[in-house]
Amino acid sequence: MSQNINRYRCDLRDLQFLLFEQFGLQEILGKGKHADWGQEEVNMVLSEVYKWVCDVTGPINESADRVGCKFENGEVKTPAGFKEAWKSLYEAGWRGLGVDEKYGGQGGPSTLALTANEMMSGANTAFNMYPGLTQGAAEVIEHFGTDEQKKTFCKNLYTGVWSGTMCLTEPHAGSDVGAATTKAVKLDDGRYKIEGTKIFISCGQHDITDNIIHMVLARTPGAAAGTKGLSLFIVPRESVDGSGYNNVVCASIEHKMGINASSTCVLNFGEGGDCIGELVGTVEGVGMKQMFLLMNFARIGVGTQGLGVAAAAYQSALEYAKERLQGPHMKNFKNPEAPKVPIIEHADVRRMLLEMKGRTEGIRALVVKLGMHADKVDILEDGDQKTYEKGQLDLLVPLVKAYGSDQAYEVATTAIQVYGGAGYLQDHPVEQHCRDAKIFSIYEGTNHIQALDLVGRQLGQRGGANFQAFLKDIGAFVAKNSENETLGKHVKELGQAAQSLGATAMRFLGWFQGGKAQLVPLSANIFLKMMSTTAISWLLLEQAIIAEGKLAELAEHDSDRAFYEGKRYSAIHYAGLELGQVLNNAKYLGEENQAPMEISTASF
Amino acid sequence: MSQNINRYRCDLRDLQFLLFEQFGLQEILGKGKHADWGQEEVNMVLSEVYKWVCDVTGPINESADRVGCKFENGEVKTPAGFKEAWKSLYEAGWRGLGVDEKYGGQGGPSTLALTANEMMSGANTAFNMYPGLTQGAAEVIEHFGTDEQKKTFCKNLYTGVWSGTMCLTEPHAGSDVGAATTKAVKLDDGRYKIEGTKIFISCGQHDITDNIIHMVLARTPGAAAGTKGLSLFIVPRESVDGSGYNNVVCASIEHKMGINASSTCVLNFGEGGDCIGELVGTVEGVGMKQMFLLMNFARIGVGTQGLGVAAAAYQSALEYAKERLQGPHMKNFKNPEAPKVPIIEHADVRRMLLEMKGRTEGIRALVVKLGMHADKVDILEDGDQKTYEKGQLDLLVPLVKAYGSDQAYEVATTAIQVYGGAGYLQDHPVEQHCRDAKIFSIYEGTNHIQALDLVGRQLGQRGGANFQAFLKDIGAFVAKNSENETLGKHVKELGQAAQSLGATAMRFLGWFQGGKAQLVPLSANIFLKMMSTTAISWLLLEQAIIAEGKLAELAEHDSDRAFYEGKRYSAIHYAGLELGQVLNNAKYLGEENQAPMEISTASF
Repeated sequence: MSQNINRYRCDLRDLQFLLFEQFGLQEILGKGKHADWGQEEVNMVLSEVYKWVCDVTGPINESADRVGCKFENGEVKTPAGFKEAWKSLYEAGWRGLGVDEKYGGQGGPSTLALTANEMMSGANTAFNMYPGLTQGAAEVIEHFGTDEQKKTFCKNLYTGVWSGTMCLTEPHAGSDVGAATTKAVKLDDGRYKIEGTKIFISCGQHDITDNIIHMVLARTPGAAAGTKGLSLFIVPRESVDGSGYNNVVCASIEHKMGINASSTCVLNFGEGGDCIGELVGTVEGVGMKQMFLLMNFARIGVGTQGLGVAAAAYQSALEYAKERLQGPHMKNFKNPEAPKVPIIEHADVRRMLLEMKGRTEGIRALVVKLGMHADKVDILEDGDQKTYEKGQLDLLVPLVKAYGSDQAYEVATTAIQVYGGAGYLQDHPVEQHCRDAKIFSIYEGTNHIQALDLVGRQLGQRGGANFQAFLKDIGAFVAKNSENETLGKHVKELGQAAQSLGATAMRFLGWFQGGKAQLVPLSANIFLKMMSTTAISWLLLEQAIIAEGKLAELAEHDSDRAFYEGKRYSAIHYAGLELGQVLNNAKYLGEENQAPMEISTASF
Repeated sequence: MSQNINRYRCDLRDLQFLLFEQFGLQEILGKGKHADWGQEEVNMVLSEVYKWVCDVTGPINESADRVGCKFENGEVKTPAGFKEAWKSLYEAGWRGLGVDEKYGGQGGPSTLALTANEMMSGANTAFNMYPGLTQGAAEVIEHFGTDEQKKTFCKNLYTGVWSGTMCLTEPHAGSDVGAATTKAVKLDDGRYKIEGTKIFISCGQHDITDNIIHMVLARTPGAAAGTKGLSLFIVPRESVDGSGYNNVVCASIEHKMGINASSTCVLNFGEGGDCIGELVGTVEGVGMKQMFLLMNFARIGVGTQGLGVAAAAYQSALEYAKERLQGPHMKNFKNPEAPKVPIIEHADVRRMLLEMKGRTEGIRALVVKLGMHADKVDILEDGDQKTYEKGQLDLLVPLVKAYGSDQAYEVATTAIQVYGGAGYLQDHPVEQHCRDAKIFSIYEGTNHIQALDLVGRQLGQRGGANFQAFLKDIGAFVAKNSENETLGKHVKELGQAAQSLGATAMRFLGWFQGGKAQLVPLSANIFLKMMSTTAISWLLLEQAIIAEGKLAELAEHDSDRAFYEGKRYSAIHYAGLELGQVLNNAKYLGEENQAPMEISTASF
């Protein structure tokens, strides 16, 4: 085994393919707000970020997991190297790629920021949560804060002088956010006194920055019950006017299955002393709407985090499979003296690796597609095109979050299986990937919450027009490519899958209207998976067709041929496995199985 | 939350149902070798074992995981309470339930031992590995040893005076067992000098017993290459003739994702001093055949371990879901002031729990069915019936091991999701269940090895007669029950699934014979899953039909009604989800997707 086997690896070539060969990022570069950016700059940044994570955060991923965060006397000590990594990150500017120049950012496209984020999450997912949440806090203030608030907080957050958090969850208000009871009482000077306990606060306390800016959902006196009565507050740990310590006490940190280097805190606001915050913007009672922006950002972040960990696990398993010798080649299986081969030569290992490859490239395609829609929303004038882009962006968020997170765990699990017994040991990175990934399906809205958001909210937006546009895009691809010689069979099956998606969505509508609403939550997760795998099959088949075109042009021994040929196999293996399941799942949902609601609690 | 929420729980009622209402264990009790056993004794033992694990090993499961085994100066220290638990276990006699009375056992049926083993594995799976491997070592000596060896080792192993291990794996011989290079050189006195290194040896060194009896695969000089040249040796850590320490050195222990309290050792035999062993039996070169008995025992043990952990995770999640209040009932979802309900009231939680229930009860049914075949093999005279029982036993071993282990991990993963964020914390047992369970798909032959054993070996045994008998049993059930009013639809689909299994098996034959042998390893895992889910759908539907009969007899308010009604829902939910996938998978395999073999290594 080479010394290097455990280091972080990323498939830069695939990132470039997505940005410039599939999604045409170049079309929005060199003009408007991205005037300073060209293809060369983007490629250079990707290479530099890759180098940075390999040098700085990747090497401390394992040690940070083993040590975890330590809680002593109310303070949280992060693992060795985290402070230095933070400093290096903001000096390099990698967190500011998509941030406005006026706040110290680099004004690049969101899509670039997302692809860079894959690497930062993949190399050290626990570390990357600190800057990730910080950026989220900054974005919500940039969108909803007063001019004064933007001036005070945005640049300091975007440039890493301070860090940030999002504080929603309370002991009895997890998925049920509206049950939050943290109080915010207005003072004479317009500020608010905050009192309450928040739990599961990622990066809620640490020793990386001098100040931490908490974004806290709380209820003002007399406000409505539920989410409508919530307002959002900026609550710095140290007051930013220099008046000193604000009363935010970290009561404990959690001991978890993974992401051990990310502190998960219980925070008491205003216990044993005043805790002062300020309302985001000027209007009370819109906290949930404001928090949604932050949550949307965080959900895309979790999907990207899933992508990063899945891709890292795939690359680790691939490298190991190429190096590890075990057993003879299948054609010699009866000859015990035949030479041993790398395990990548064995059929089942190849099967697992190709499955991981397709899944990883599939989530990556979904994330980049989402990024491109976001960038277009950002630069387009109001109008039909912008409405379309915004609609597709909204539709993709729950897919990226839920499918991306589920696949991260599955891919990491398969990576362990590729390693065999060695994968179960802490000597290799994949068991950590697996432990880290499990939380992705839970935080920032469980994957069931995502599925409910998809079927209960997104499908019906604009009278269903967003979803219809999504199906129409697939339909256009199918119409154009169903006679493709090598891929046509899968393209046709994609068409069937898309039709079954549309029919299932109509079924949901029927259930909502026809007194069978309880079938909706029972079916939502399956629908989300159907839609995700259909979308990914589409995007991978599109990649395969692009790759066919490239292969026709390339010289016989061009080193890029292997990459393009790989695209073909990712597509046919993924689509071959998944599209039949979409049809099967549509049939299953059509059977309206209500057993989980019919069984009595005593019968469990 | 009640104080008790984290304690181990087992569904004793389901065990009793399986033994006495579905599989008719009573028919073999009270006569022959089980003359002393009746239904009452069996039920009493099950209750007592349940009580024992709740009192003794269950309460130290968590603490043992956190501390793990410690390695200092060549010695392994097991977690607090392990020595005492071992002593208590053998005093109570729970490991000897199925063991012959002449070796200190209780002479009960294997099926009882397996059901007791579910509880011992579920309450503390790492602890249970020590006695489990010990029993395996004893069984191999009982079957293949000389009279002298049986006398020397069996009773001491079966009664826990000594413990045992199985030593197969070497650094470059994992799945490729035949590559083992550990040497055994015969001495003048008939004993052997053992030299070599074994890795991944579970319970290879510890402080629980004074002596450890290692069963070691090694190669004699001049023996054939591959598995055919291997012999099996008994290698005690302390010589059993009182001559003192034998040179077996524990070089290190592994740091793992889970089963932290089970020591996983690197063992050096004969390094820096002689290590003496004795051949099992009298003939060299049959070690692999002998080891297969031990491996078969261990594979059933791993499947049962999977069952134990799955069942524990399901019960934990169920208990939590009944206690944890979150959110209003769905019918009040627009009213933020509606009372909070236990999360078991929420549709998605019910869906997850019912899925876990069906999977858990399904593996349990498979394990008990296997146990009953084993018991019948044990008591029947040679003849057609015994041949049938043996054939079904052989067929079920890879299913129990592979499907049982995969489902343990899936059920534990779903359990975390039921808990939500709390499930990711070490405050609750489910994240440990998940970490523990991941190894089950790897050790004792990876699940791919099981799948190859199924399609490459078991399907073709006796010219396919075992598999045909399996399909015929399902066919008889389908013929009898396909017009059942409430379950007939699923029974018919079971018939289709069984047909597609048969057709797929024929396809394998065609591939073997038609130059497409590489499709076999690519398809084996999927076939194993198809066959497992078909078998479980059958057994659960059979349970549901038995339950229908019981319900017709029970009074309206009989407390047992809830149990029987639950059976119906386990069956229809499991069969509803899985049988369609069997048909879909059969279609997929029919497409002969060879992408994993066609893609070049450079294209990954």
